[in-house]
Amino acid sequence: MRAAVLSIGDELLIGQVVNTNAAWIGGKLTEIGIRVIRQLTVGDDPVLIREAVGSLWTAGEVLISTGGLGPTHDDRTVEALAEYFGWHLELNAEWVARMRAFFTSRGRPMPENNLKQALLPREGELIPNELGTAPGIWFEREGRILIVLPGVPYEMQAMMEAFVLPRLRTRHRGTRLRMRTLLTAGIGESALAERIGELSPWLCRGLEVAYLPGPLGVRVRITARGEDEEALNRAIEELEAYIRTRAGRYIYGTDEETLPAVVGRLLAEQNRTIAVAESCTGGLLLDRITDIPGSSRYLLGGVVAYANEAKVALLGIEAESIARYGAVSQPVACQMAEGVRQRFGAQIGISTTGIAGPTGGSPEKPVGLVWIGLSTPEGTRARRFLFEQDRRRNKERAVQAALFWLWRYLVGLESEEEASLPAKEA
Amino acid sequence: MRAAVLSIGDELLIGQVVNTNAAWIGGKLTEIGIRVIRQLTVGDDPVLIREAVGSLWTAGEVLISTGGLGPTHDDRTVEALAEYFGWHLELNAEWVARMRAFFTSRGRPMPENNLKQALLPREGELIPNELGTAPGIWFEREGRILIVLPGVPYEMQAMMEAFVLPRLRTRHRGTRLRMRTLLTAGIGESALAERIGELSPWLCRGLEVAYLPGPLGVRVRITARGEDEEALNRAIEELEAYIRTRAGRYIYGTDEETLPAVVGRLLAEQNRTIAVAESCTGGLLLDRITDIPGSSRYLLGGVVAYANEAKVALLGIEAESIARYGAVSQPVACQMAEGVRQRFGAQIGISTTGIAGPTGGSPEKPVGLVWIGLSTPEGTRARRFLFEQDRRRNKERAVQAALFWLWRYLVGLESEEEASLPAKEA
Repeated sequence: MRAAVLSIGDELLIGQVVNTNAAWIGGKLTEIGIRVIRQLTVGDDPVLIREAVGSLWTAGEVLISTGGLGPTHDDRTVEALAEYFGWHLELNAEWVARMRAFFTSRGRPMPENNLKQALLPREGELIPNELGTAPGIWFEREGRILIVLPGVPYEMQAMMEAFVLPRLRTRHRGTRLRMRTLLTAGIGESALAERIGELSPWLCRGLEVAYLPGPLGVRVRITARGEDEEALNRAIEELEAYIRTRAGRYIYGTDEETLPAVVGRLLAEQNRTIAVAESCTGGLLLDRITDIPGSSRYLLGGVVAYANEAKVALLGIEAESIARYGAVSQPVACQMAEGVRQRFGAQIGISTTGIAGPTGGSPEKPVGLVWIGLSTPEGTRARRFLFEQDRRRNKERAVQAALFWLWRYLVGLESEEEASLPAKEA
Repeated sequence: MRAAVLSIGDELLIGQVVNTNAAWIGGKLTEIGIRVIRQLTVGDDPVLIREAVGSLWTAGEVLISTGGLGPTHDDRTVEALAEYFGWHLELNAEWVARMRAFFTSRGRPMPENNLKQALLPREGELIPNELGTAPGIWFEREGRILIVLPGVPYEMQAMMEAFVLPRLRTRHRGTRLRMRTLLTAGIGESALAERIGELSPWLCRGLEVAYLPGPLGVRVRITARGEDEEALNRAIEELEAYIRTRAGRYIYGTDEETLPAVVGRLLAEQNRTIAVAESCTGGLLLDRITDIPGSSRYLLGGVVAYANEAKVALLGIEAESIARYGAVSQPVACQMAEGVRQRFGAQIGISTTGIAGPTGGSPEKPVGLVWIGLSTPEGTRARRFLFEQDRRRNKERAVQAALFWLWRYLVGLESEEEASLPAKEA
């Protein structure tokens, strides 16, 4: 089964609202094995809506539209669909009663223009909306299904979960789909693809692999399609295991995991505590760590030492080191990591110092240069990275690099890694 | 001029990534008066891409596509477009040189598969990409314009701003559109609308006003349409001035400004320095402040004191106060603000302590309770806020409240404001 998704609303075209509905529906259909082949967005104009339905109706077996079911004059979806499909619209007495009850329960009379929302096609079936006044429509013709839903995300989602998805699940036989995303850091897209190498034997077996690069790392997405769920899961596991033999040292997690969550779980499991000294990342590393519920179990705290005097007074950095090597230097990164570890009485100290930009760079120390320090019971060391021109991105990449180093330390890969430094390292 | 936007990528169809690109492009085109009539999303499949281009190419005068320009085998956009338009693809020597320089500056060799990204149509013009290896393409035929851009948002946005939008602006004549957004904090949507009052005289003159509520405050957007740019600007300025007479004490900025940037400018102008002590916001307040270039002029630094021992050791909080009132309390918020001000030798100290959630709440101190402290030469005080259940949103709203208080202090509105505390305050 293939599906198209139609989003209706001027607010989407002018960029006032980001279309999260199409993504949400895409995710849900994908989960039950229905393949989304197209997402189209048009404005609240009956001519354009008819045209859009015309182009999508025969594209797959399912068409889901959202939006344009409100009570005001600019909501034209049902009118446009009625013209396209030759529907007979009638006032649905049952829904009028439901709407009146809806308003009564909120202590106000129903405005007359809401009646419009009860105008429904004799040819279709009503999809109840427990959270609002716009009902949905389920309509079938010649083996194809049209599903009409409101655009308010929580109403649409509730109707999908309660009515649409269960019914589609019983209709849809055949191909299922399983996905797994492997999350990597510390290696670029091309280098990762080279390391993983030729995958054609796997691709022949109906598996797909996509590399999705982002500023914080490359995600590798494996997709399997087929009828036997067991077999799909097995195929994905085998390919994942193979990719891990090739590039496991870069894979910190899967699917919805995040590096701060993975690192946090390891710290909690290993009963370790951490403290953080930030300069160029300015609090972002601490922010990411504290986004994880329960992070107070392992994070004791940290210092953002922007001014050099603060580095000296709060972290015990030697003023002489700053004068001699500069604040952005290996010795200062080491002293920061060690200093914060001692001040907070933590087992691990981690530090960042660099030139975030946009100004403050020099030929020797350009914008994007960052030293990261790690202090553990085994000793203190620092590594040099060279990121880019953008201030925010420098902060984010430095934080990711610091967390990735911490991950490697916690899983025992750190020493091995020294031999094959991540490509982005200077 | 009318435009269609084509987004290319399987990750969009399966809902792994929300399509923010189409919204961003829609907003930018709308601003320069180009009407977006359709947004279409298809997967990385050359047949479907060709089909999509076929359906969009004649729909308007401009077609912008994003995505599918990467170096790997699943990036098929250029290949599909070349077939559709009959392009002759050639290795662009200039771009190969740029890519090699890009990699060299990062200290690594260019992987061979990146060469694919320099395969460009003889018939088109290259749109430079300063932030990545995928160039864009500008192509015209029979009065229509095709613009091909990468899908990585920051690369796409930079190329739009630097190359595409300026050029489209010179091409497009006719109705112009001007917008101004007034940014408020510390007041809810209904209270703000009541305060601003009746606007119908302005709306009759063709101006539109929209209230856009969000977790960090309500934005008020003024829109004017017409052909005379001078008249549009004047109309907007008059309405803005009127709204400011009604609700100016809540308006901290306009358009793309942010509260950290506005506060930072005031601190710099007034030659003041600040230090920050965070507990529940866990580094986010420092992160926001340090996102502003040049923040080292006024931010001396800060402490994230998660553990109570850290509050005592690094900020000089009295252990007795913590034992007696709890870490989330007025006395501790005050001591944190004062302590960090003294330790860093700053003129202003600001602090947060609260229950971020999801656990750790009690009937007396529920999740979402936050005390914010402000220490200035005039004295030290703290205020109590009650936010919500979500951890991240609590952090964000607490940071916004802290910065908004600081803004009111810096513009001399603080004492006036005491009489009309923001609605969300407990």
